[in-house]
Order: sequence, then C-alpha cells, then structure tokens
Amino acid sequence: MSQVTIDKNEVDIVIAAFNSDLTSFLESWRPVFSRFHLIIVQDPELKDELKIPKGFDFDAYIKSDIEKVIPPSNTSMFSGYVCRYFGYLVSKKKYIISIDDDCTPAKDSNGDLVDIVTQHIINLKTPATPFFFNTLYDPYRKGSDFVRGYPFSLRTGVPCVLSCGLWLNLADLDAPTQSLKPELRNDRYVDAVLTVPKGSLMPMSGVNIAFDREAVGPAIVPALKLAKEGKVRWETMEDVWCGLVVKVVCDHLKLGVKTGVPYVWRNERGSAIDSLKKEWQGVKLMEELVPFFQTLKLSEDAVTVEACVVEMAAAIKKGSHPELANAAGNMVEWVKIWKEVGSRVTV
Amino acid sequence: MSQVTIDKNEVDIVIAAFNSDLTSFLESWRPVFSRFHLIIVQDPELKDELKIPKGFDFDAYIKSDIEKVIPPSNTSMFSGYVCRYFGYLVSKKKYIISIDDDCTPAKDSNGDLVDIVTQHIINLKTPATPFFFNTLYDPYRKGSDFVRGYPFSLRTGVPCVLSCGLWLNLADLDAPTQSLKPELRNDRYVDAVLTVPKGSLMPMSGVNIAFDREAVGPAIVPALKLAKEGKVRWETMEDVWCGLVVKVVCDHLKLGVKTGVPYVWRNERGSAIDSLKKEWQGVKLMEELVPFFQTLKLSEDAVTVEACVVEMAAAIKKGSHPELANAAGNMVEWVKIWKEVGSRVTV
Repeated sequence: MSQVTIDKNEVDIVIAAFNSDLTSFLESWRPVFSRFHLIIVQDPELKDELKIPKGFDFDAYIKSDIEKVIPPSNTSMFSGYVCRYFGYLVSKKKYIISIDDDCTPAKDSNGDLVDIVTQHIINLKTPATPFFFNTLYDPYRKGSDFVRGYPFSLRTGVPCVLSCGLWLNLADLDAPTQSLKPELRNDRYVDAVLTVPKGSLMPMSGVNIAFDREAVGPAIVPALKLAKEGKVRWETMEDVWCGLVVKVVCDHLKLGVKTGVPYVWRNERGSAIDSLKKEWQGVKLMEELVPFFQTLKLSEDAVTVEACVVEMAAAIKKGSHPELANAAGNMVEWVKIWKEVGSRVTV
Repeated sequence: MSQVTIDKNEVDIVIAAFNSDLTSFLESWRPVFSRFHLIIVQDPELKDELKIPKGFDFDAYIKSDIEKVIPPSNTSMFSGYVCRYFGYLVSKKKYIISIDDDCTPAKDSNGDLVDIVTQHIINLKTPATPFFFNTLYDPYRKGSDFVRGYPFSLRTGVPCVLSCGLWLNLADLDAPTQSLKPELRNDRYVDAVLTVPKGSLMPMSGVNIAFDREAVGPAIVPALKLAKEGKVRWETMEDVWCGLVVKVVCDHLKLGVKTGVPYVWRNERGSAIDSLKKEWQGVKLMEELVPFFQTLKLSEDAVTVEACVVEMAAAIKKGSHPELANAAGNMVEWVKIWKEVGSRVTV
C-alpha cells in the first residue's frame, strides 16, 4: 500500500567473515550492496588477512578492534558466528542488514535477482500487525490489503523492528534433520511476508535478517554459546536464543516481527553427520527453553528494550542450567556494553 | 513429508445455491468435483427450480427440507449464505469442502488447475503446529520440514480440523475497502499453507473452506446474522463470527487451523458502494468482538466442542449487545440441532 524510500545513510550491511577471501561473495552481491556501507567483522579465530574486492564502501574490524571495546572476560564470546554482533554494536545506523557469507543472491519467481536490502527495509518501514492474523499476508504489500473482518482499529499496526528472511537451496535445518534427509533442498519460493503473531515464538535464523538497530539493538543479543559450537549453522543456537529473547521483548513492548521474503540462496556445506555429536545439546535445550519463554511475563515496569532484557536475564538466572546462567550473564553484559558504546562519539 | 490418500467416501462438497442455474459453475469444477458427492442447498429465498448438469452425484435440499429439520423459529436464520450450514448438518461424511457459487478453479504458478479438494484434504490430514511458528511454513508439505531450533517434542503437531483457502482476482475485502479501491485485485499466488498460531485469531472467510466435520462440526456455527445482510460477501459476517468461535475452541482443545493454499478464482460482483450503508454494523461489531474473543478463557470442564460452544454462548449472553444475545442463542440452538440430527439414522 505504502511507498517506501531507502536512504543509504540509514543502512549498514553487517558481514561476519569466516573466510578471509570475500571476493566471490561480495562480487555476487555487488549489484545489491555497492551503494551501501558495509561493516565486515572478521572471525577473531581467523588469522589470514581479509581480501575485499574494490568498489565497496566498508569498515573492517579484526580481533584487536574487538578487544578494544569488549571487556577481556567477554571477548571469547565473539568468536565464530557471534562476531557479527560486534558489527551491530559499532554501527551508527538505524537499520542493520545481516547475512551469512555462504549466501548468494536468490532469484524470485520471475527470475529476477532478489534485492534483499530493499525488501528488508520495506518490511521494516511498513507496520506489523501482531494482534490479528491477516489471511492475505502482509496487508501493506503492494496489491494486498486487510481482508473482510479485520478490525479497523488494528489496521494502523505497530512498528516493525525485525525482518527475518528465508533461504532457498540449503534450508536452515538442524543437524539431525539434515543428516536424515541429505537430499532435501528448499526450492519453493513463497512470495509472502507476514507478521509473526503476538504470543507465538519462532526459530529465528541469523542467516538473513534485518532489524531496526535504534529500536531493538540491545535485544539482538549474543548470549548463548554451546560448548562444542563450530563453524556451520546447524551447530549454533545463538540466533535461535536471540530470536526467543527479541520476540518476547517485542510482544511486551507492542513491536512487530515479520518473516518471509526476501530469500537468499544458501550454498552447500559439509556433511551434517559430523555435527550430530555436537548439536544435541542445543536440540535438548530447546525443549526447556520454549516453554520457559512462552510463559515468561515481563513486568509493567519494563518499558524499554534494555529493561526487558535485564529482567529476562534475571528470570533465566533463577533456573538451574549452567549454560543458561552464562547466557543470562551475557545478556546483562551486552546491555551494559551497548550503552557504553552508544555514548561514545567515536569507536 | 507424508503421503495422503483421499477416500471419496469421506468427503462431501457443500454448495449453497444463490442462483438456480448451477450449470456454468459446476461445469467449471467438473474435473475436480465429479468423483465426489455434492450437497447442494438452495437459498430458501430462491424460488426457481435448480438446474444441475448431468454427471454429478448430488443431493439437493430446498426450503421444505430445511423446514423438516430446523425448528420453525429458526428457519429464517438459514436464508442467504447461511443455508450452506444446513448442508454441514445433514452430511454424514468426515470432511466438508465448502465453496461459494461465484468461484471457479484457479490456476497455480505452473498454470495448472488447482484441485481444491486434494489440497484441503492434505491440509486436514496432516498435522497442524499451533504452538511454535515454523518459518518454512507447513513442515508437512512436500519439500519442507521443521527449521533449526524447532523443538522436537512439538514436531508431531496436533490434528488439523479447519483449512481456510484463499482467493485470486476479487479478494475477500470488506465493503469500505472494496469501495475505496475498486480496481484492487489479488494476483499474488502465494504457494504456502501455514498453521494460525495458538492465541492468534483470524478473519475466516466462508468463500473457500474445508473442515473435519466429525471433529469440529458443532463449532462451525451459523449464529450472527446482520439486520441488513444481503447477497454479497462484503455484507455478511456469519463466517467471520464462526471463525472467531472455532479458533477459540481449537486453541482450547489443542486442535489446529491452517490457512493458505488452495486458492479459488473469485469472479466479479456488483459495486461495493451500495453495500456501504449496510455493512458498517459488522465493521463496528468487530471492534468489540475481537478483544472479547481474545480474552475469553474457557473452563477446564469444557472438554468437548459442544461444551466449548455452549460455554462461549453463555459468556456472550452476559454482554449488552442485542445482536450478540441472538447469536449466543443461535449457538446453543445449533449444538442442540447438531446432536438431534446426528442421532437420526436418516434425515
């Protein structure tokens, strides 16, 4: 319904570099990314120097940059996938687009290259509708609207602060599912975006997301790191945990989360079977986490994102799991760091 | 994931006839409907004799048939769109497919005719997942699965009892929206079906639905009839009301509701502007109904669909609206009639 303009000064694209040579990755994205500023954060465990092709406007951060900002006790947290959160922290922009470096642009059902930046920003700049489900999906998309019976008082919606994109080819499955169905590929391009309803939690994937940094930055929190976490998505849980946290915060503060388009194309990774011995810890944790987060009620005093995260951390700490106590500590620490970094003039 | 077989003895297709000549409607559906039994219910206000083309297995019901079953005080309720509920009542099958007679088959993104019966039955025979949102939509669809982070204990799902299909061309908008945007047509074929999460209500449209009659029949209830209701969808609210009722029942009894494919093609109707003087009553009612149904908690004693509907009717009756008191009365009456008709050997 609405016309969205995209101001390049409002957008940072954050890329976590797990491979030092980003040439083919960035070349594939050049038509989409070249007019935006990139924040490239090198996995602190990666020793080689980054190779970044010419023609991009970027800032790159390495281990020593992280160590200047993050207290020494916390720097180990920022290895692997989590290093991208450092990019969220040092950005000064309103919107963050974040994408894994094993993804290339997808094509839509017309065969056109998917511009993930435009679509994510449209998702974020148009309202979300978490209080009633619209059967024609996002009513603000061109060609759509609210269907008969949708209360008019709810048609203004609420601010959308998180846009979760999807993946073609290699879907973001867990190691057991991927091991059981090694041939399974996602080839269904579903041309839709929708608000995840209030009260419903979803398994957020960090592969392809965007968010309003000013509105929910402190809730996009690096907190849960599994002991045997590795360098493939099916071994990680940091994003899933973050998704539970941010959705509870959004439901409490009347903010919206969307899921659907834009898609990216996820390229092949190694065998999931090797990961099976690692990832069960995360799989088992979810059985406890989901009921916990589903029943968590934040107090009326929690009126800011920071207050919500801190209150949630306190509730988690009361539990018995040692991993979760660590995660709760990381959440409190993150809110603190976020405030400190935000108050500096330069990083 | 699962293979679904469709037994024609389990399915009734219910058609409410608002036009006496069903020839072109049924001919358009012949490839899909011809192997199933049809229940055709003539709008009691329609005087002409039905014209039904050869080669269909059907039972037709007219005003005098309705009067044999429904108490005289209630027969006026069954005029217009509501007459189809009489078909639901007299069916002996497990599954009902119900479709408006101004719809013809849609084409999918490959240009193939959409077989609504097969898709609705697949939706109903595969589980629903109302307790956690799956970002790759229905995990039971071929080519899809649960994404990383989805709790394994929730992957068995719950029985799906209601499948809400969608519409191409003329979308199911209300009269104000249709009047404001007379040129708006829905041409986006979204190849997805998803579970409406627990706690989220949706504006059910009766244009194209299917349900498990044995499981939720008594909750598919004709209850709310607006004073100036007419013969076009944007003047009616009976289906929207029914959707609120059935979703609250499903959430309470741990049953599932899906929305998405299959699509039908909705043909043009007259001007929505004429309806504006009629439909505001329904639009205004929704402002009160949604908060009411959203906060309604059924008791633990309500363990059957019938008990849920009766308990809900009692809660509605306590309100102040005269239309709603009538609707509550109709709900209680429906549960009674459903039980009576179900206990007869033949109708």
